[in-house]
Amino acid sequence: MKNFTYYNPTKIHFGKGQISTIDTEIPSGARIMLTYGGGSIKTNGIYDQVIKALGERHIVEFSGIEANPRYETLMKAVVIIREQKLDYLLAVGGGSVVDGTKFIAAAVDYPGDPWDFCTMGIQSKSALPIGVVLTLAATGSEMNSGGVITREEQKSKRAFGNPLVFPKFSVLDPETTFSLPPRQVTNGIVDAFVHTTEQYLTFPAHAPLQDRQAEGILLTLIEEGPKALLQAPDYDNRANLMWCATQALNGLIGTGVPQDWATHMIGHELTALHGLDHAVTLAIVWPGVMHIMKDEKKEKLLQYAKRVWLITEGTDDEKIKKAITLTDNFFRSLGVKTRLSEHQIGSVTINKIAERLQGAGMAKLGERGTITPEKVIKILNERL
Amino acid sequence: MKNFTYYNPTKIHFGKGQISTIDTEIPSGARIMLTYGGGSIKTNGIYDQVIKALGERHIVEFSGIEANPRYETLMKAVVIIREQKLDYLLAVGGGSVVDGTKFIAAAVDYPGDPWDFCTMGIQSKSALPIGVVLTLAATGSEMNSGGVITREEQKSKRAFGNPLVFPKFSVLDPETTFSLPPRQVTNGIVDAFVHTTEQYLTFPAHAPLQDRQAEGILLTLIEEGPKALLQAPDYDNRANLMWCATQALNGLIGTGVPQDWATHMIGHELTALHGLDHAVTLAIVWPGVMHIMKDEKKEKLLQYAKRVWLITEGTDDEKIKKAITLTDNFFRSLGVKTRLSEHQIGSVTINKIAERLQGAGMAKLGERGTITPEKVIKILNERL
Repeated sequence: MKNFTYYNPTKIHFGKGQISTIDTEIPSGARIMLTYGGGSIKTNGIYDQVIKALGERHIVEFSGIEANPRYETLMKAVVIIREQKLDYLLAVGGGSVVDGTKFIAAAVDYPGDPWDFCTMGIQSKSALPIGVVLTLAATGSEMNSGGVITREEQKSKRAFGNPLVFPKFSVLDPETTFSLPPRQVTNGIVDAFVHTTEQYLTFPAHAPLQDRQAEGILLTLIEEGPKALLQAPDYDNRANLMWCATQALNGLIGTGVPQDWATHMIGHELTALHGLDHAVTLAIVWPGVMHIMKDEKKEKLLQYAKRVWLITEGTDDEKIKKAITLTDNFFRSLGVKTRLSEHQIGSVTINKIAERLQGAGMAKLGERGTITPEKVIKILNERL
Repeated sequence: MKNFTYYNPTKIHFGKGQISTIDTEIPSGARIMLTYGGGSIKTNGIYDQVIKALGERHIVEFSGIEANPRYETLMKAVVIIREQKLDYLLAVGGGSVVDGTKFIAAAVDYPGDPWDFCTMGIQSKSALPIGVVLTLAATGSEMNSGGVITREEQKSKRAFGNPLVFPKFSVLDPETTFSLPPRQVTNGIVDAFVHTTEQYLTFPAHAPLQDRQAEGILLTLIEEGPKALLQAPDYDNRANLMWCATQALNGLIGTGVPQDWATHMIGHELTALHGLDHAVTLAIVWPGVMHIMKDEKKEKLLQYAKRVWLITEGTDDEKIKKAITLTDNFFRSLGVKTRLSEHQIGSVTINKIAERLQGAGMAKLGERGTITPEKVIKILNERL
């Protein structure tokens, strides 16, 4: 097992009716910026629950944080906070709203251009406290210290991290997801699935508990995922999907093990260039990474085939091939189109992505740094 | 899934050489009480590493915290801290030293008798900060907010909890366990195993991820446990056992599910009356709880038989019986004597335990409150 440091101070309030706990979590004198997205929270009752819980506190609303939250949008919030001396951020939404709110929190007191967080790995020395009311199970942002921001003018989508932006608390009420369109629910399942495989499907590192914790998430997503499509929202089903998504990226399954993340880096380019949903890009790229990197990932791919897909027959190659096919089928069964051609994307984009990764200092991706731009081209060609 | 709140702010530094991190974690001006047990840390090099990392900081040593740490001992430390105005506690040892140090931390500023924490559930309103260097994988105390204290004059062993006593950080260096006698290593394995079953083996609660996280710990302990006996200490083996023990009682697998803990309450009485090692009491009592409560625990016992012991043949009763036998065999394979008669304990003690639990307000134990004193007698008679 590799050495590691694990730290995660976010308090989780999970379950029905837990939105009311924000009243005890946020100081009564707080001057709050309430951040959210397109406004669906105003029609599904979540906004009303939040406003009721906040009582007499001073609130400034900042709506319109988009999917793949934009630097340009977020910096407008930063200006308002500085002008109005707000001191607490409450994010109500999915991963994009939470990621964007983290960026705002770290940017407020940063003297330079906060885009530095994403390009130079700079961490601001202070951040406003953040609370979260999660309305979509997917990214895990509600219980980690990272985010991904898009700079529209450069068509760049980049990650940042800072321990100061761990949410102080996150409310996870599965009922908030009942009104989501199916596409957002299934995107969340794919997102949590690939977050898990990025930390699990690398090479063995004498970490059997972490392996089993990761396999536990994958098996639960495979079991619970289809149920989210087949029926009216079921509380326990949504609760399990929500908790899986949080556990997939709160740092736990990544302790002491190598990590890949090439699928994410390649996927971010697809989103930046073509606007594809994040989860859709993962569902496209990940089977290609498994296929092209199957020799380097052989031991873990066989373990994945056996323990997650219960494949016991055939040669090693056949088992691996079947596991990749079943993964792709699982994504497709959720209604996700997993081929580039289904999104009208071809070789022009593939070559551009390889160039852009090289230009951004990402010419050596994957757990061994062996996913070169040439390999990226092979991976994407396999997914045409 | 049940509603829950999960919060665990302890930072973990895991791996070889991590003792040096205490220099960055403890303020340079701290006035430290260094707590430890019988002094083995002075012969195995751990003490030297700690002192080196602490550098010029002011240190007062308090040694002699015993297994099943005693109120009487701990209150002596409280007096010293008050007199010398110490402000940081560094516990170097196993679960008893950590539990005892938590009690001290909460007691220092408490105006009444701190035994109130154990008998009345009172939580002090402040606590000194605690750091931990763990030297024995077992109790999980390094990453939770509880402890168990023994009051010798009353022969009482009681638990307490307070979110203020979460360690600020814990160093988990598997190499610190290399010099342990086998009995302490195997006790730790049993302890982690039964911590897990207390939270897992109850009744189904629509929490498949938590089930799999618990099963992952059990399977890893079964796989890694015997290796700890068969060979010279192996780093990865000890690392896996250490991480399992922490994960077994840091709150994660208990989120959203019913919990039992009857085995612990009964076991505490065996320790208080006869001085048995904590883990030995669990290995004695737990198979009896499974046997006597097998109807109420039927669904989870069948799941346990199938997923943990891979039992697929036989009637439901036969599967359950076999799972209980394999559990008992596992404990015995680690050298633990799992029958009361092997410890010269008989019906006099059994009746006394039932009376004492009744007197201490513990007449309704277990996840459904159905383990009455009569059931306790049945459970212990089954373990003669």
